[in-house]
Amino acid sequence: MAIRVTVWGENVHEQKNKVVAGVYPLTMHGTIAGFLNKEEGITASSVTLQDPEHGMTEAKLAETDVLIWWGHAAHGQVDDKIVERVCDAVWGGMGVIFLHSAHFAKPFKRLMGAPCNLTWREAGERERIWVTSRQHPIARGLPDHFELETEEMYGEPFGVPEPLETVFISWFQGGEVFRSGLTYRRGAGNIFYFRPGHETYPTYHDANVQKVIANGVRWAFNPEARIAKPNDAPNTPVDKALEPIVERGPRLHHDGEEGFK
Amino acid sequence: MAIRVTVWGENVHEQKNKVVAGVYPLTMHGTIAGFLNKEEGITASSVTLQDPEHGMTEAKLAETDVLIWWGHAAHGQVDDKIVERVCDAVWGGMGVIFLHSAHFAKPFKRLMGAPCNLTWREAGERERIWVTSRQHPIARGLPDHFELETEEMYGEPFGVPEPLETVFISWFQGGEVFRSGLTYRRGAGNIFYFRPGHETYPTYHDANVQKVIANGVRWAFNPEARIAKPNDAPNTPVDKALEPIVERGPRLHHDGEEGFK
Amino acid sequence: MAIRVTVWGENVHEQKNKVVAGVYPLTMHGTIAGFLNKEEGITASSVTLQDPEHGMTEAKLAETDVLIWWGHAAHGQVDDKIVERVCDAVWGGMGVIFLHSAHFAKPFKRLMGAPCNLTWREAGERERIWVTSRQHPIARGLPDHFELETEEMYGEPFGVPEPLETVFISWFQGGEVFRSGLTYRRGAGNIFYFRPGHETYPTYHDANVQKVIANGVRWAFNPEARIAKPNDAPNTPVDKALEPIVERGPRLHHDGEEGFK
Amino acid sequence: MAIRVTVWGENVHEQKNKVVAGVYPLTMHGTIAGFLNKEEGITASSVTLQDPEHGMTEAKLAETDVLIWWGHAAHGQVDDKIVERVCDAVWGGMGVIFLHSAHFAKPFKRLMGAPCNLTWREAGERERIWVTSRQHPIARGLPDHFELETEEMYGEPFGVPEPLETVFISWFQGGEVFRSGLTYRRGAGNIFYFRPGHETYPTYHDANVQKVIANGVRWAFNPEARIAKPNDAPNTPVDKALEPIVERGPRLHHDGEEGFK
Repeated sequence: MAIRVTVWGENVHEQKNKVVAGVYPLTMHGTIAGFLNKEEGITASSVTLQDPEHGMTEAKLAETDVLIWWGHAAHGQVDDKIVERVCDAVWGGMGVIFLHSAHFAKPFKRLMGAPCNLTWREAGERERIWVTSRQHPIARGLPDHFELETEEMYGEPFGVPEPLETVFISWFQGGEVFRSGLTYRRGAGNIFYFRPGHETYPTYHDANVQKVIANGVRWAFNPEARIAKPNDAPNTPVDKALEPIVERGPRLHHDGEEGFK
Repeated sequence: MAIRVTVWGENVHEQKNKVVAGVYPLTMHGTIAGFLNKEEGITASSVTLQDPEHGMTEAKLAETDVLIWWGHAAHGQVDDKIVERVCDAVWGGMGVIFLHSAHFAKPFKRLMGAPCNLTWREAGERERIWVTSRQHPIARGLPDHFELETEEMYGEPFGVPEPLETVFISWFQGGEVFRSGLTYRRGAGNIFYFRPGHETYPTYHDANVQKVIANGVRWAFNPEARIAKPNDAPNTPVDKALEPIVERGPRLHHDGEEGFK
Repeated sequence: MAIRVTVWGENVHEQKNKVVAGVYPLTMHGTIAGFLNKEEGITASSVTLQDPEHGMTEAKLAETDVLIWWGHAAHGQVDDKIVERVCDAVWGGMGVIFLHSAHFAKPFKRLMGAPCNLTWREAGERERIWVTSRQHPIARGLPDHFELETEEMYGEPFGVPEPLETVFISWFQGGEVFRSGLTYRRGAGNIFYFRPGHETYPTYHDANVQKVIANGVRWAFNPEARIAKPNDAPNTPVDKALEPIVERGPRLHHDGEEGFK
Repeated sequence: MAIRVTVWGENVHEQKNKVVAGVYPLTMHGTIAGFLNKEEGITASSVTLQDPEHGMTEAKLAETDVLIWWGHAAHGQVDDKIVERVCDAVWGGMGVIFLHSAHFAKPFKRLMGAPCNLTWREAGERERIWVTSRQHPIARGLPDHFELETEEMYGEPFGVPEPLETVFISWFQGGEVFRSGLTYRRGAGNIFYFRPGHETYPTYHDANVQKVIANGVRWAFNPEARIAKPNDAPNTPVDKALEPIVERGPRLHHDGEEGFK
C-alpha cells in the first residue's frame, strides 16, 4: 500500500509570473508531485487554490495520507472553513508538510498557535542547510550539509513554538541563520516544516531537497485509521466509572447531556 | 512594581445557577482576583464576558501583565476578533493562565493549535494532584501532592501539544489520570494550563490551588515591554545585509514592498 | 530484513527466588525474547549479566538493532566499561528500551543524566495504563487504557528529564500516578522507557504489555548504519572552510592536531 | 539576598600560554567573576581545578546558587567523584552554566547523557549570534543579534539532547551554524549551555556576552532549599497508602527494607 500524498499548490505565480512559469513549467505542485511519484511506496496527486473547495474536499482529505502545502501570494483567499477542515484531518491523523512561504499559510498558523513570522530578503543568495539531528529519519541519506546556490533568505527569530525536534538549520550568505526543518505533533497528526522553495529559484529540482521532502512524507505518514471525530470530548458516566464511585455534590449536566463547547 | 493581573470571568453560572452563586458569592473571577490581591507584588482586577469587548479592550490588555481565563458555558459567545487581540497580546509578551474548562476556550484552542479535548465526569469525586517536576517555580511551597475532595474528572488523552514541562498530574477516584499543569510558550508569551476549578465545587477557596495560581502568575510574568507588532515579518534590504552580498536572479518584490501575508 | 533485538536480563531473581522462577520458568529475558520472536519482522535473542562482558560484547552490540534492558537487584554489578560501550552504541544509532526497575540501571542513568528516582510500593495493587498520545506508534493497536491487576507501584515525581513525548501515564489503586511511557533521543539512538514489569507478577505474559514492547522495538529501530565513532569532534581546517576565510589571531592547536577531550 | 555564583576555572592556559595570559591577565574565571560582581543582586567567587577537591567541596557547593564551568585542556583531570558531587548538587537544585569548551567537560557530558560533540576550527573568524526566542529571560536587553569579530568556530551537528528551549543560534564566517544557547533541566537544577569563549580571544570582555552570562545566572537560579538527597527513592508502605489497599501477592522486600540501587 503506497502512501497517498496530495500536494496543495497556490498556483498563482506559475500563472502570472513568467519567471516562475519558466522555472516550473509543470507548476510547483506538479513538480513536487512528479518527483514524489518516482519514489517507491509513494503516490502523489495535486490540487490547487482554484479548485472547488480549494481541492480540499472531505473526500480528497479522506484519501490523503500526507498533505504538502505551498502558498505565498494568496494566503488570504483560503476559506476559513477549509482551514478548519484541514486541521481536523491533521488532528485525526493526516500528516502534513508545510513548505517555505507556507509559514504564513492559514493552516500552519492555525496549527502552530503562534505568529510564525521571520525576517526575509530576496537576493538570490547562497543557503547552506545543516543537519542538526544525526540520522533523523527526515535526514536519511543526506550529507551533513548541502547548498542551494540561490535562495530567498529567511532569518531568525522564527516565531514558532519550540519543536519536537530541530532537524535542519540554515546558514545564509548575507549573515542570517534559520531553523529550516522542524517537527511537531498536533492531535494524531505529524507536522514537518521545511524552509526552502522560493518560486523564482529551481529549489524543487534539487536532488537533496527532493530527498528531504520524500523522507518527510515517510516520517509524517501515520498508518492508522483516521480518527473520525478528533474534537470529541466524551462524557464517562458515573455508573461506568472504571473504579466504583458514588456521585456526590451538585451537578450542572443531566445524564447523557453533552458538555459545553 | 506589582504584577498586574486581569481575571477574565465568563460570569454565566454565577448569575444563573444557585449552587454556583452559593459557592462563589463574589463570583469566580472576583474570588480569584480577591486572593491574588492578598499576594505580595500582585495586583488583580477582573472583567467579564458581558463587558464591552468582553473587557478585553486594547487599553486593558496593554495594562495586563498576566491574564487569567475561566470560561465554560459560553465559549461560543466570545468574539473572534477579541480572540485574535488576546493572542496578539500573548505573542507580544503577556502571560496567560487558562483554568479548568478554559481548555475549550477560543483563545486556548487558538494558542494550542490542537483539539484540546478530553474525557469528563461530573461526580464530585476525589482528585489528587501530584507534582511531577520537583521545585518547578509553579510548584513552589507545595507538598509533593494535595487533594481536592470533590472535583469534576478530566481524563486522558488530553488533546494538547507536548508541553515545555509537565508540572502536575492528577489521579482521580474513578480511575483516570490527567496532565493537570502544563507550560507552553507562544511568541514571547508564557502560557500555563491548570486543570482544577469546576464551578459547583469550592476549588478556588483551596489554599493549595490559590498557591498554584499565584505561583503561575509569577512564572508567566514577562517584565519586558510588550512587542508592538508581534506578527511583523520585516524585509532586510540587500544593501543592509550584515555581510556584503550582490543581488542575483529574479525578484518578486520591489524595493520596500511588504511581504505577502 | 528483520529487526534484531537483544534482551538483556539480569537473571538473578529467576535463579534465586522461587516465586519469580514460577512466574517466569523461561526467565524474564527468555519470556520477552520469546514473544518478540512471534512478531513479524522481529528476531530476538537474549544475554545475561553473568555472560562474559555481560553479553554486551562489541560483536553482539554490532548485530543488535534494538536492546531491551531489564535489571533490578544487581545494577551495581554491571561494569562501567560495559555501560560506556552500550551508551556508545546508542549514540551511534542503536535503539534501546528500558523496562521497569531499569530506571536505576547504569546505562539508563548514564543516558538520562538525571537521578531517575521515584517512590515505590510492593503491594500487588491494580495499575491502569492510559494512552496520553493518541495514535503514537508505540500505542498502536492498544485500547485507550488497559489494566494490570497486580503490579508494584511507582509514583511521581519521576526524576527524569522532560521527554520528547509522554505516551503513557499510570493510575495506581493506592493513589499515585506515574509517567509510564516516555521517549528520548540521545545521539542517533531512540530510547523508550516503559514502567511495568515487577518480577513477582506475570506482567510480561500480558498481551497489551507485549504489544507495547513490540511497538517500542519498531519505533526505536533506526535502519541506518551505526555511526562508527559517535564521540568524534572533527577539526575543519581553515583551507577547507566552505566559505573562504583568512586565518586571524593566535592559535592553540597546530595543523592536524586533535582537540582536547 | 544576592545570588551566589561560583566560577570554576580550569586555569591551565592562563598559566601556560602567554597569549591567554595576555588576554585574561586576571584569568578567565577571575574575569567572569569580576564582571558578575558588578551586577546588582549577584555575588561571585571563583575556584580552580588545582584547588583541593578542585574547589568543589561539599561546603562550597552548599553555598553556591549557580555554578559556572569553563574547562578545555584538562577535562580528564577532573576527578569522577567530584563530577558526581557536582551532578548531585545540580539535581538538588543548583543552577549551572557551561561555557564554550565545557561541552566536553565531565559534568556536562554526565548531565546530558549524550556525546556532546561538534566540529570546530580555530581561525579567529567572525561569529554572529542570533536570538531565536524573543524576550527569553536569557536574551533580556540584547539586540536581535550581536557579533564577535574573532572566535573559534563550533559547527553542527551538536551532539546534545533536544533542549527545553533554543535561545541562540550562531552564524560563522566560514559557513557553519551552531545552537549556541540551550536550556535544560535535570532534577531540580536549571542548566544553560552558552557557546562563545575560546581562551585566545577577548570574548569575556564583550558587553553582550557578559549580559548573556548575567541573564543566565538569574534564569538558572532556583531560590528553594537544596534537596538533601536528590537520588532517594523512598518506599511508601502499604499501611500509609493514600487510598486504602490490601496487600496481595508475593513480595521481594521486607517491611522497611531499602530498594535496590
